Amino acid sequence: MYELYYWPTIQGRGEFVRLLLEDAGADYIDVVRKPESEGGGVQALRALVEASEHFAPPFLKDGETMVSQTPLIMDYLGERHGLTPRDTDRRRDTLRLSMVLSDFLVEAHDVHHPLAKEFFYEDQREEALRRAPSFRQMRIPKFYDYFEQLLQSNGYLVGDACSHAEFSLFQVVEGMRYAFPRTMARLEPKYPNVITLRDRIASRTGVATYLTSERRIPFNEHGIFRHYPELDI
Amino acid sequence: MYELYYWPTIQGRGEFVRLLLEDAGADYIDVVRKPESEGGGVQALRALVEASEHFAPPFLKDGETMVSQTPLIMDYLGERHGLTPRDTDRRRDTLRLSMVLSDFLVEAHDVHHPLAKEFFYEDQREEALRRAPSFRQMRIPKFYDYFEQLLQSNGYLVGDACSHAEFSLFQVVEGMRYAFPRTMARLEPKYPNVITLRDRIASRTGVATYLTSERRIPFNEHGIFRHYPELDI
Repeated sequence: MYELYYWPTIQGRGEFVRLLLEDAGADYIDVVRKPESEGGGVQALRALVEASEHFAPPFLKDGETMVSQTPLIMDYLGERHGLTPRDTDRRRDTLRLSMVLSDFLVEAHDVHHPLAKEFFYEDQREEALRRAPSFRQMRIPKFYDYFEQLLQSNGYLVGDACSHAEFSLFQVVEGMRYAFPRTMARLEPKYPNVITLRDRIASRTGVATYLTSERRIPFNEHGIFRHYPELDI
Repeated sequence: MYELYYWPTIQGRGEFVRLLLEDAGADYIDVVRKPESEGGGVQALRALVEASEHFAPPFLKDGETMVSQTPLIMDYLGERHGLTPRDTDRRRDTLRLSMVLSDFLVEAHDVHHPLAKEFFYEDQREEALRRAPSFRQMRIPKFYDYFEQLLQSNGYLVGDACSHAEFSLFQVVEGMRYAFPRTMARLEPKYPNVITLRDRIASRTGVATYLTSERRIPFNEHGIFRHYPELDI
């Protein structure tokens, strides 16, 4: 039985973990989404931060083992559920790609929060408007180009099988469609292999069931991917 | 014989790799710093990006193996040179901490470049002035508090020995002293264990020799850590 600890009202980084757990059909508790009366709530997350030696959620507990940093959680779960290659070099490459996509998340967040997490969007909207063109025109293509090329050469991101890195890319595509629908409608036709991968992951039994379930929190303007139309022109 | 590929005029992320190589007394070539006539120069870096399936430097080549993403390079080198624990959980914890510090680098960079890498500092100076207080007052203490507490409990960051995560923390302390001398002079007295660790790493034979050698590129205003006095009040 796994325990996931993450903010209860957003997909955020926790979603990368949820997707793997759902795909595997694993027994897990999304602890913080439980009522406080059942040991859940944000209080449970705060208590774990205090008690543990880990820096920031998501946290995965598996018995005595606790893992944090999203790509490491994916590597850990993938090893147990067939999404982390056994070969050392391929395993490292898979982790590396989930790390690259994790870096992209910072940019996808900071485009609407270029100054500070503590400020409201409205208090850094002018700065976001200045940051967004570079994100749309340079950064999105840089990352999508890279993954398109990998897939074009190999069919899969690593080796000859699906891996947790493909789940990372799936979730980035989902988030970008939500946050930048106009931009992505314009750009996606250049990335047919990325979109094929997205569809392949979406149609996996566990994922497909999850995506239409109530367990999946809708994207919203508290998460990493936020839709502000003025940034998406 | 290792080959490191990284920008030749800055410490940047490459410095984390250089420190480990120097500490180990490893045979390595800092390829891009060689003259073009000897296969070096930025041209060599560009050619490798084209030819490889890796995203961004630093790259470490070790025969047929190529590794990128700084924390993964450190995990790789550490395994070969006694700075990566053999125990699976401790190894993951060490990698995790180097990843946390790698995340800090993004913030230490974006404080002076909150809008876009492509703009000059001067073109985002006003925004940097708005971002810097949050960085100084919230973000630096958040990271330093965390590492101070770990060290206070354990003496070492992981287990009972020095690891590559301690090199990551060393380099962050060095960079922050350069970029934010006034702020760090104010804050460092709160972090005696972090400073003790910094001194312990600095006095390791290979590191001590390296730090005063010409191989160490001085910090400057092209790297991640930049000293702009107006951000450091």
